[in-house]
Amino acid sequence: MIGDIQVDAQGRHRHFLTTEGLPAHTIIEILDTAESFISVGEREIKKVPLLRGKNIVNLFFEASTRTRTTFEIAGKRLSADVININTGVSATQKGESVIDTIRNLEAMHTDLFVIRHPQSGAADLIARSVPAHVHVVNAGDGRHAHPTQGLLDMFTIRRYKGAFAPLTVAIVGDVLHSRVARSQIHALTTLGAREVRVIGPRSLWPPVPEGLGVVPYTDMAKGLAGVDVIIVLRLQFERMNGALIPSASEYFSLYGLTPERLALASPEAIVMHPGPMNRGLEIASEVADGPQSVILPQVTNGIAVRMAILARLAGALPGETKPA
Amino acid sequence: MIGDIQVDAQGRHRHFLTTEGLPAHTIIEILDTAESFISVGEREIKKVPLLRGKNIVNLFFEASTRTRTTFEIAGKRLSADVININTGVSATQKGESVIDTIRNLEAMHTDLFVIRHPQSGAADLIARSVPAHVHVVNAGDGRHAHPTQGLLDMFTIRRYKGAFAPLTVAIVGDVLHSRVARSQIHALTTLGAREVRVIGPRSLWPPVPEGLGVVPYTDMAKGLAGVDVIIVLRLQFERMNGALIPSASEYFSLYGLTPERLALASPEAIVMHPGPMNRGLEIASEVADGPQSVILPQVTNGIAVRMAILARLAGALPGETKPA
Amino acid sequence: MIGDIQVDAQGRHRHFLTTEGLPAHTIIEILDTAESFISVGEREIKKVPLLRGKNIVNLFFEASTRTRTTFEIAGKRLSADVININTGVSATQKGESVIDTIRNLEAMHTDLFVIRHPQSGAADLIARSVPAHVHVVNAGDGRHAHPTQGLLDMFTIRRYKGAFAPLTVAIVGDVLHSRVARSQIHALTTLGAREVRVIGPRSLWPPVPEGLGVVPYTDMAKGLAGVDVIIVLRLQFERMNGALIPSASEYFSLYGLTPERLALASPEAIVMHPGPMNRGLEIASEVADGPQSVILPQVTNGIAVRMAILARLAGALPGETKPA
Repeated sequence: MIGDIQVDAQGRHRHFLTTEGLPAHTIIEILDTAESFISVGEREIKKVPLLRGKNIVNLFFEASTRTRTTFEIAGKRLSADVININTGVSATQKGESVIDTIRNLEAMHTDLFVIRHPQSGAADLIARSVPAHVHVVNAGDGRHAHPTQGLLDMFTIRRYKGAFAPLTVAIVGDVLHSRVARSQIHALTTLGAREVRVIGPRSLWPPVPEGLGVVPYTDMAKGLAGVDVIIVLRLQFERMNGALIPSASEYFSLYGLTPERLALASPEAIVMHPGPMNRGLEIASEVADGPQSVILPQVTNGIAVRMAILARLAGALPGETKPA
Repeated sequence: MIGDIQVDAQGRHRHFLTTEGLPAHTIIEILDTAESFISVGEREIKKVPLLRGKNIVNLFFEASTRTRTTFEIAGKRLSADVININTGVSATQKGESVIDTIRNLEAMHTDLFVIRHPQSGAADLIARSVPAHVHVVNAGDGRHAHPTQGLLDMFTIRRYKGAFAPLTVAIVGDVLHSRVARSQIHALTTLGAREVRVIGPRSLWPPVPEGLGVVPYTDMAKGLAGVDVIIVLRLQFERMNGALIPSASEYFSLYGLTPERLALASPEAIVMHPGPMNRGLEIASEVADGPQSVILPQVTNGIAVRMAILARLAGALPGETKPA
Repeated sequence: MIGDIQVDAQGRHRHFLTTEGLPAHTIIEILDTAESFISVGEREIKKVPLLRGKNIVNLFFEASTRTRTTFEIAGKRLSADVININTGVSATQKGESVIDTIRNLEAMHTDLFVIRHPQSGAADLIARSVPAHVHVVNAGDGRHAHPTQGLLDMFTIRRYKGAFAPLTVAIVGDVLHSRVARSQIHALTTLGAREVRVIGPRSLWPPVPEGLGVVPYTDMAKGLAGVDVIIVLRLQFERMNGALIPSASEYFSLYGLTPERLALASPEAIVMHPGPMNRGLEIASEVADGPQSVILPQVTNGIAVRMAILARLAGALPGETKPA
């Protein structure tokens, strides 16, 4: 199973590939560590020496300035040496396979790979190929998972809402193709959220919603009624040409998060978005910039959560986790 | 007014956006600080810990290896963590607005943005949107300003010429479109240079020369007569197709700085150029590499001046400035 | 002669441009220093402060993620500040000559340039233009030389084989166009290898094999008979369209290193490849991943050898070398 190599036989957390199957106590430990790193970002000198002399390679087979930058900042704040490789350029161009690229970087004493790849399962495949002292973090693989985003979202929810048990969470948009949504859903169900809803046209529902533990809605008004957390997904323009969703303006009229629709949720509801936003498409600017939005705190939390994950894997923190 | 937010109500120097309106004593303070950093570049260990743990983001919406590199070196020499983002690639490609990009980077605890943008006013707009503890340096916005270049030129002039009051300075070339020239002119007039001349075809003069405090010339021989400082601007090839200037060879024959023309200036005159040069177009190689050229010292001085500005804004140095 | 400026009149090793003419004792000193750096890569904290506060610029006029990354890691492990410039983008685009680019970076107090350039002799030309305190490392120039690759190969051979005198080494492939092969051949002959063979179609032999001190073979079986070291060169797809070599599959059938062919060499023979490999073209995967392959150790050794060269040139190590 994808992800079953995240924890080794001795219970050490070796890789971070997916939130699926990650035990609740492991997630909680990571969130607790991240809490302690929040203060680092607020200090005059935003550095801790936990990963001094360690090499982190950000190996991105898909462009993403935002995610790459958060990992680069997280690594540098831990005092690691960070190398950015944006590929599609050199080695792969020259016909070298991904695994050969990894082996070469490993041979340069890379301690930790952060991988973004357009194919689902890529980070898992890489994790299976590396020796015991090398760690892999999945920074997004195809439609499969984006688990550091998933955890930073859990961190953000916990900061604003406290316990997960009483919460109803609605995820709005193209859940079918979203690696972010999958990682959120696995974490939310593991952490015992009362109800997770997905809202969108039937064509964008996950294939077996009940199997995932989510309740699907096509109607925004019904789906948002009384929810505590609204997560708006980014609409992927590149998939809009097919028959899956209607035009941009029609989409906004049906599923755009407007102030009126937000009023249907709990008055204390928070609004989240993984970014980058399409304002006026999946979310109205009044909501994105409104008092219930925690979209920018998500970004700040992302640094702390990624620091926690990097430090944990690299053994700079107690990372014992009982096998699932 | 653009730039009026450079200094806050308490007289602290918050942003560095333009030399226009910058008080003479502020410019002098920066030049004095830069003097103290010159020696850092000449040491065995070229680092000072003033900005340790601070995050600087070089956010370039326009390619410029040279300027980006000087800021990267200046930041690293101050021990800051420097992140380079060359955009047009990811976030903006995905339709995120510039201000959303900035807010996200801010949320990652960026302390200081260095912005290059093809549109005039972009750095100013960004400076107006950031919270009080975040600082913005304009590394070139459209045709408006390139104030760190302007100050490194003042630093260079002061090093070779001492006081500004007795100096006649000639700026040769496309002053109309040059952000470098605007930043130089404002600084020179504030510092009390005796006379600032612009030399070039009438089509490249600034619209109201007298309003800027400069004396325009179309004739090189007349314009260069007796000057103490000659600043040759880079000819922008991309604007040569219009009717503004004649062909390259005709331009050189009329306005190229040759040894013969240089001989018309004061025998002690220095020759400056912001780089990169088009040899044989706006400047002859004999002049560029000749004994009166201070073009390479300009580059060296640029590191020290940028260190001074970064350290001053980030509060690592006494930066009190009375409001203008 | 290219390379005659590597060592200055006082016997100091100033630049690293070619293995041609490099005295045996200099090569041995570098290999010995590299041995001492191997352990740095295996430590928890993979850093030594030898080049703290020094500026290294990786100036690549040709894309190469792999080589650039090894130099970046080597520089960072020595605690230098490393700036990557991948050009063809900004300065050269704007019409600035290579020498002007170098002078500008020099003026920013660059201590050491690592140059990759598509034209033979580029690094040498640059080395002739820099002042006495600036050092140049050739990271590959056209078809001429790739001397750090050559030395890491010598290091690898010595690690597995001990002395050079008894060794027969076969280099397989396009020796004519390979800067890697040239650097290997010069180092091997200087170090006194018993015999250096080149194997490939006659169209890919070097023009005067005897002049280089190598014995040419067209037949793999004959060329590999009894050899101690096999170096497989990368087949350059981009040169396959000409009449120089047959089709890819025909090439593999004639010159691909298969297990059967490897069996013709000494049973203790090691297999090397500078990477990136074309599996199934110049080398079979069974061989590339087999017990006789030392291809990944070559990569690891490359970091240590590059650290040794950088530290030696920058004067952080005793680097006296008697003039050749």
